[in-house]
Amino acid sequence: MLSRPDVAVVGAGPVGLAIAWRLAARGFRVAVHDPAPGSGASHVAAGMLAPVAEAYFGEHELTGLLTASAARWPAFAAELTTVTGVDIGYRTEGTLMVGLTADDLAEARRLWAYQQGIGLPVTPLRPSALRDREPALAPRVRGGAFAATDHQVDPRRLVPALREAAERAGATLVPTAVRSLSDVDAGVTVVAAGCGAAALTGLPVRPVKGQLLRLRAPDGVAPGFRHVIRGYADGEHVYLVPRPDGEVVVGATVEERADTRVGAGAVLRLLRAAVDLLPELAEYDLVETLAGLRPGTPDNAPILGPLPGRPGVLAATGHHRHGIVLTPVTADLIADLVSTGTADPMLAPFAPARFPAAGTTEPASRTKPAGTTEPAGTAVDGRRGRSASEEEHTWN
Amino acid sequence: MLSRPDVAVVGAGPVGLAIAWRLAARGFRVAVHDPAPGSGASHVAAGMLAPVAEAYFGEHELTGLLTASAARWPAFAAELTTVTGVDIGYRTEGTLMVGLTADDLAEARRLWAYQQGIGLPVTPLRPSALRDREPALAPRVRGGAFAATDHQVDPRRLVPALREAAERAGATLVPTAVRSLSDVDAGVTVVAAGCGAAALTGLPVRPVKGQLLRLRAPDGVAPGFRHVIRGYADGEHVYLVPRPDGEVVVGATVEERADTRVGAGAVLRLLRAAVDLLPELAEYDLVETLAGLRPGTPDNAPILGPLPGRPGVLAATGHHRHGIVLTPVTADLIADLVSTGTADPMLAPFAPARFPAAGTTEPASRTKPAGTTEPAGTAVDGRRGRSASEEEHTWN
Repeated sequence: MLSRPDVAVVGAGPVGLAIAWRLAARGFRVAVHDPAPGSGASHVAAGMLAPVAEAYFGEHELTGLLTASAARWPAFAAELTTVTGVDIGYRTEGTLMVGLTADDLAEARRLWAYQQGIGLPVTPLRPSALRDREPALAPRVRGGAFAATDHQVDPRRLVPALREAAERAGATLVPTAVRSLSDVDAGVTVVAAGCGAAALTGLPVRPVKGQLLRLRAPDGVAPGFRHVIRGYADGEHVYLVPRPDGEVVVGATVEERADTRVGAGAVLRLLRAAVDLLPELAEYDLVETLAGLRPGTPDNAPILGPLPGRPGVLAATGHHRHGIVLTPVTADLIADLVSTGTADPMLAPFAPARFPAAGTTEPASRTKPAGTTEPAGTAVDGRRGRSASEEEHTWN
Repeated sequence: MLSRPDVAVVGAGPVGLAIAWRLAARGFRVAVHDPAPGSGASHVAAGMLAPVAEAYFGEHELTGLLTASAARWPAFAAELTTVTGVDIGYRTEGTLMVGLTADDLAEARRLWAYQQGIGLPVTPLRPSALRDREPALAPRVRGGAFAATDHQVDPRRLVPALREAAERAGATLVPTAVRSLSDVDAGVTVVAAGCGAAALTGLPVRPVKGQLLRLRAPDGVAPGFRHVIRGYADGEHVYLVPRPDGEVVVGATVEERADTRVGAGAVLRLLRAAVDLLPELAEYDLVETLAGLRPGTPDNAPILGPLPGRPGVLAATGHHRHGIVLTPVTADLIADLVSTGTADPMLAPFAPARFPAAGTTEPASRTKPAGTTEPAGTAVDGRRGRSASEEEHTWN
């Protein structure tokens, strides 16, 4: 039903759909292949846009990309809402990061100091200031900090909006599964298949299980707190994402497992941490328990760009915990690459070629020692380029 | 499609179906009205047959009926299995009652002493003996006791088996809801409608909410414990019912509410208590969270017998937490009453007439003081009859 498209996108999650939208809007004929759009990691994701709270030790390049993408989110959300008329639940109250016990606070402060040290906007708050912002926090909470630029969106609203935008721009949804890239006939193929990218490309994308809960305030009222809350509670890391319709997402485990079963222990730990931080949640309904699989990579950073030895094939996968926040920058950079044939310098640290297993070209410097089955966890092949206009913050 | 039946039973839960089975087997033409058989309290029930563990202070008559019915269970289960060929999950490993902390154990021992004092078979166990019986119990568990005669059945297997037995005996299922007893045309009407009995009869049956969880051992193996375990864990009462297919039922809250929402706080308390008592449960899948409504009564005892002022109408409702264990004795006594027209003396303490609101005949001795809307909680109009052959134990 579609003549040979210019671009085939494999995967109709947020990343694949946003790429399709951007390319279709530039006049490319685009087909998006997915038997179940939005049924992957995004269906489970909480939708935090958190370049600050997600800035971890040793992940400079990733932090830069998160920050660049978060900076694009206001315009991206506005444009998407204008085009589709869909409320995607984009909210800008910011994020409170809190520690329940003295030990929790000590651990949190170490990370906040790191984040401040690389120039990210983290504002420590005294307990009284914390409670002024969120009176519903447990009196036990020892302290916190405010990340004014860490926002949220609702992934279950985002995916239908992106699909609508892509289709309005002329992209075609093809509801079939792609088992092999040889099944796809297009000028350029973009693999945005999340965990499915491993089987299609040989890239080292692995499933990282996440379990989370959806609570709902009784009687349809809004939750008694406005900020995204990320906390350490007796050593447990938990986030609480409030939505105006009463929903609160509580997440998430990070597990090196590939099943999507919900475990009693995980639910217990999430609920205990959530109720310890915000006691009113004990009175909420528990409406959903679920597990999903994030597409993880050896260095926790996404894989973006041309696949070595596979002309005409681009990867846009491996977004791990950051698929939602990274959607705008991924879509822009991949669309630019397809349009111009030239990779933006920002893409360099995220090139597929940093992994020896990608495609047929194995960099000479990355030959694997005998017996090694996984590439090293943190090495990258290039340095991330800087674009000052796309970043709010700088760091060393 | 059915000529005027001899008996109409309203409600196809275990009690209604067992009554229908017993009466149809005696040659009565029986119709059972229910748009959704087995969808009431039995769908949520754990299926403990626990006359000992459920023997509470001040409930002598109820304890007697529980014991009498539990004594009928072996023959009842065997007959039902023979007639239908259905495995109803009847298991006789007995029940361990345990206390996690010293405070829990002190509270539990007070009840065990009461139960022993009225002649019930409770065997205190030293911690070493407890662990010999169930090595999976947490090392923290301070002590326990064994109730050798408290068993279990699987209510979700029981209901289809009873339906099969009733239909094989000639009873007819009528899949329509009964809104008023005047809609029913039969020689005798038995109201076995659980919480629905209140609207049909005016009896003081109220919904008592219970929330519970279903866990499942991973990989299809059987749970790592054999006994039903009833515990006190940091003040929380919880039971754990293992089934051979890997299921473990964890219950249950007792709440004076009529909704069936699942609450985050209830799930947290149940999971915490369960994992504190039996740590391996943290590794189990959480496969179901649900809430149901038990038909409670002012004195916690069922309502069995003729409705005052309503000739030809019998009640068999108000079984509260004990519907499964009380099914055999209820079915036998009600079937006898229908057959012979004479109430067994065992029914006397459970007569509908003990509540002034029942029917139109108000006992002179039970006139309500002005302003009282509920009858007194524990008074009963008669003394329970004894049938030594139906009881394993006696008490004062």
